[in-house]
Amino acid sequence: MVYIFGHKNPDTDSICSSLVMEKFDKNLGLEVEARRLGNVNKETQYVLDYLGIKAPELLERVEEGQRVVLVDHNEFNQSVEGIEQAKVETVIDHHRIANFQTKEPLYYRAEPVGCTATILYKKFKEENMPIEKKEAILMLSAIISDTLLLKSPTTTEEDKKALEQLGKIADIDINSYGMDMLKAGTNLDDFSAEQLINLDAKKSEKGNKKFVIAQVNTVSIEEVLKRKEAIEQAMTKEIENNGLHLFVFAITDILNSNTQVIALGKETAVVEKAFGTSLQDHMVFLEGVVSRKKQILPVIDENM
Amino acid sequence: MVYIFGHKNPDTDSICSSLVMEKFDKNLGLEVEARRLGNVNKETQYVLDYLGIKAPELLERVEEGQRVVLVDHNEFNQSVEGIEQAKVETVIDHHRIANFQTKEPLYYRAEPVGCTATILYKKFKEENMPIEKKEAILMLSAIISDTLLLKSPTTTEEDKKALEQLGKIADIDINSYGMDMLKAGTNLDDFSAEQLINLDAKKSEKGNKKFVIAQVNTVSIEEVLKRKEAIEQAMTKEIENNGLHLFVFAITDILNSNTQVIALGKETAVVEKAFGTSLQDHMVFLEGVVSRKKQILPVIDENM
Repeated sequence: MVYIFGHKNPDTDSICSSLVMEKFDKNLGLEVEARRLGNVNKETQYVLDYLGIKAPELLERVEEGQRVVLVDHNEFNQSVEGIEQAKVETVIDHHRIANFQTKEPLYYRAEPVGCTATILYKKFKEENMPIEKKEAILMLSAIISDTLLLKSPTTTEEDKKALEQLGKIADIDINSYGMDMLKAGTNLDDFSAEQLINLDAKKSEKGNKKFVIAQVNTVSIEEVLKRKEAIEQAMTKEIENNGLHLFVFAITDILNSNTQVIALGKETAVVEKAFGTSLQDHMVFLEGVVSRKKQILPVIDENM
Repeated sequence: MVYIFGHKNPDTDSICSSLVMEKFDKNLGLEVEARRLGNVNKETQYVLDYLGIKAPELLERVEEGQRVVLVDHNEFNQSVEGIEQAKVETVIDHHRIANFQTKEPLYYRAEPVGCTATILYKKFKEENMPIEKKEAILMLSAIISDTLLLKSPTTTEEDKKALEQLGKIADIDINSYGMDMLKAGTNLDDFSAEQLINLDAKKSEKGNKKFVIAQVNTVSIEEVLKRKEAIEQAMTKEIENNGLHLFVFAITDILNSNTQVIALGKETAVVEKAFGTSLQDHMVFLEGVVSRKKQILPVIDENM
């Protein structure tokens, strides 16, 4: 059995693309099974409930030699425990490549588009494989999530085209479905500060420096900042427990397309250099910034 | 201008795929230029002479931020000087992924097939782009070279299919053209021992151990071994000058599909473990072994 999964702290693209890739491979007659590396978030749960389907089963670790397909990530530190000894046969991704290596040749397909599901859409087209309504909704949900309804600067013409076509197949009003889905994901009240900073946290390394950039989407930054003190305590604890040099918590306003950043750790000067401004109360407000991948990670990585 | 190039010590796939990718991108209206990272070998020269075309220009290094397309390789230590600071926009490759990373998302297409040109052939098909005779000959030459006329275990059904189709477009007798081309590459008389071990040498690293696996094709292993002493002296010099832990020189008999290996360095025990036999006079004979990528590199890397 080959396992297909997205990154830890799975987002909608990671879950939906795993399920779609499972369908794609099964259509080709392959024995595969979608899995997930963590809890499903509220936005993704909205999609699964809408379709009346269950989330993939949890995968905690893989044994040596386990055959795997990675979607929506490649960096081993964002992947399953044991990945170093697994056999990565296929990667479908739209991120930078780092902390990744294989012993043998593999199938790797990455494109600098806004969403993994956009690449999967192209793969269905290239294979002349019909797309069913369920997979169309999974893919369009992933695209809406990753591009914030095409408003993120990571959005490409290919994402737009894929979303439009998938909307037709699904026979759905993209905008009203999309806003409902995004809003479902921004209800952060139930989460403790510890949970909040881990909802969508991505670990990176540069040289021997470890850092985390976590992100939450909201319709009110103010509402999240009411818990600033507890959030900072939770961040400090993460830093101490994991020997982090920097923890960046990005609170992104999906209605107005801005991000409030809270940064803690030894290397906060990196954040100041990255955005050319000094931190006030451990914070910096980033106008027009919504994309971790395109607007936050590269400048932090460069200055680390 | 975007530069397209294959690996150092370019082989026929590296040169031909650079030229074909240049054509592909130009057809899409992109400003690109094929380059080469070293001297063209005799086999490749046979192809260029057959077509009456010149080799791409030499590229010695790239400046920071230079946009590049890598074909037939990804590992930075096999690439151009300055690659770490370049902007890798696209990779088309059929090797394992290692010693490679980017700051930003990119277009990456790897498939576990026998030759980069096989992937390029598929790209032309996917784009419904017509293949002209010149590009057909470049691609079929690369496939013949990398798969030793489909006899190497790296050969896949996709390579066979591509070669057959390209042969039709080129209107050429694949077998007689292929044998002439391969034989043109096995005339090693003009080369000094130093040149011989560098004709097609690939550097790798595992942990802090550096090793080189070089390969030459011949129709007579015996003929090459007449110069064993000089070859070993040259290998020892390379080891000393570059702090190598191991130098493996693979002499591959393309007629009978066997390989004679000469191994020198501190870590020759790795070779003995890899092939489950002890070295005699620094040598081991590998029956049925012709592929560095599939039959030599993985077992050496694993035991290093």
